[in-house]
Amino acid sequence: MPGEFELIARYFQRDLSGAPGVLLGPGDDCALLAAGDGMQLAISVDTSVAGVHFPPDAPASSIGHRALAVNLSDLAAMGATPRWALLALTLPEVDEDWLHGFAAGFHALAERHGIALVGGDVTRGPLSITITVHGELPLVLEDAVHPDSVSRPILRRDGAREGDLVVITGAPGMAHAGLKAWQSGTRDVLDPCLAAYLRPEPRVEAGLALRQLASAGLDVSDGVMGDLAHICRASQLSAALELGELPLAPELMAALGEQGAREAVLNGGDDYELLLTMPEEHLESAINALRPLNLSLSVIGRMQAVEGSEPRVILEQEGVEQAAAGRSWQHFPPADATEVSS
Amino acid sequence: MPGEFELIARYFQRDLSGAPGVLLGPGDDCALLAAGDGMQLAISVDTSVAGVHFPPDAPASSIGHRALAVNLSDLAAMGATPRWALLALTLPEVDEDWLHGFAAGFHALAERHGIALVGGDVTRGPLSITITVHGELPLVLEDAVHPDSVSRPILRRDGAREGDLVVITGAPGMAHAGLKAWQSGTRDVLDPCLAAYLRPEPRVEAGLALRQLASAGLDVSDGVMGDLAHICRASQLSAALELGELPLAPELMAALGEQGAREAVLNGGDDYELLLTMPEEHLESAINALRPLNLSLSVIGRMQAVEGSEPRVILEQEGVEQAAAGRSWQHFPPADATEVSS
Repeated sequence: MPGEFELIARYFQRDLSGAPGVLLGPGDDCALLAAGDGMQLAISVDTSVAGVHFPPDAPASSIGHRALAVNLSDLAAMGATPRWALLALTLPEVDEDWLHGFAAGFHALAERHGIALVGGDVTRGPLSITITVHGELPLVLEDAVHPDSVSRPILRRDGAREGDLVVITGAPGMAHAGLKAWQSGTRDVLDPCLAAYLRPEPRVEAGLALRQLASAGLDVSDGVMGDLAHICRASQLSAALELGELPLAPELMAALGEQGAREAVLNGGDDYELLLTMPEEHLESAINALRPLNLSLSVIGRMQAVEGSEPRVILEQEGVEQAAAGRSWQHFPPADATEVSS
Repeated sequence: MPGEFELIARYFQRDLSGAPGVLLGPGDDCALLAAGDGMQLAISVDTSVAGVHFPPDAPASSIGHRALAVNLSDLAAMGATPRWALLALTLPEVDEDWLHGFAAGFHALAERHGIALVGGDVTRGPLSITITVHGELPLVLEDAVHPDSVSRPILRRDGAREGDLVVITGAPGMAHAGLKAWQSGTRDVLDPCLAAYLRPEPRVEAGLALRQLASAGLDVSDGVMGDLAHICRASQLSAALELGELPLAPELMAALGEQGAREAVLNGGDDYELLLTMPEEHLESAINALRPLNLSLSVIGRMQAVEGSEPRVILEQEGVEQAAAGRSWQHFPPADATEVSS
């Protein structure tokens, strides 16, 4: 059986000679890296555990893709350019077919986003993948939203202002439906929801395009409700969410029906669209900036001052049946961050 | 039961206002960090899995200490100053007593070495800890060993030269004996070997003190034999190791006898001393540099040209009984890197 070093060499080492800032790649005690002049680093780590974050029987290439996509999504949500990744892979056994597929899925996505695998660790244990990603962004961005605070990046969670629009990229919810489909036995990889689950697209280019137009942002990994609540808390504002304006993909409606589709957008996970706030006057520029990416942007609500004791996400349901609201949204995150009004 | 965010806030968030280069700490999609002017980053990741890398019933504070120590040791082995850490913690359940102990062990070591916990992830699954560490070192070090290549750091594995001494800090092997003691039921934390296992000391200050005196180096996590073989392969040299010169701590001799002690130094793991090569004329400066740290430095061999086909570690056993050599070293790493001669 090949040892750790051989496995790493066989499946994970790539030519890094063209990778920006890589002074020394894998193989020593540390990788040596240098950020560009005037750049700061955005750094994030995420663990994917078999049976918790993905089905253990999912295709290996999808597991490799997803594990990296989750992390790239954090860079996207900061408006950072992907640079370097470290992969800590814990394997119950050495299954070369599985490793081949995993590495193929990982590297295909890594190459597409220009992120270099500069180090890692392969250990024995229950299947689990922890990836640390590093992205770069300018130390000082020209801040069109907050000219009084030019030195901070824009896609933090705490930058939303009263009156800002709440917008979301693409059509979330399909990955949630895809996971349900997988769990109920669907293996048709042409199923659009299943494809959305197995190979989510981190919105890296969208994050870069919008970082100077949005006032706050994050990636939607746990559904719009919970993630919008993070922006509310960090920005000390409430948000009025217009249920009738949620983008519902036809494929999602076909899979789950209208009410299920709305539930998936609000509380489903695994999608990794970007949820942003921005001043209304930036909307047109933002939509135009996403056009070359073939990515839509939907206005789904508005930030407003806190009334009462704490920031909340308030569901506005004009044109949506009361009954739907009454039945569907019982799994909202912390009660103190959510309130249903009409 | 508290959720992920509450757990992180309760056990892992510290005031980072004084931490160098931390522009944004935990709580957003990424941490934002900036290296100092003219500095490069040394980055490493290591996973510790319960039942593989540590006994699941070890004290929680020791698990927290060890998981970070393993990573700090990689920074030490590069001669880097510790700066930032990310902690990905996978837990089978939320045991607040355990978390309290784990965090205490982690933070005590982190504070001692000035490394700031800037991000992380808490997930559910089999107990496993993945830590990513970032250290800084100057982009250009004055290289006393290789004046022809001043731009590279010194504690890489590939810098050894023919005739260089092989030296090692401290007295390795005790942690290996300590693990054996734990496995055989010893719970006396005053046992010096057990203490060495439960709370290994990463040689961060030694790495900083020696990075301009050594030609190559790494940390000894798998025993002198295997780790010296790494230097041999990276530097394309062989090494003659003098068995009679291995530092054998009295506590280790008492625990394992002379032959067992030597075996522990050669093939035992979990110690994290630094194994270095250096020109003979630097030895006195190196010993003096470690004196304030109360850390010894032992000369245990010498680098030599490759004879035959491949770099090897050659065991010189003058004054050591043949029988000992014949019996003890059957677990040597890849045969092509090892050879016993007399």
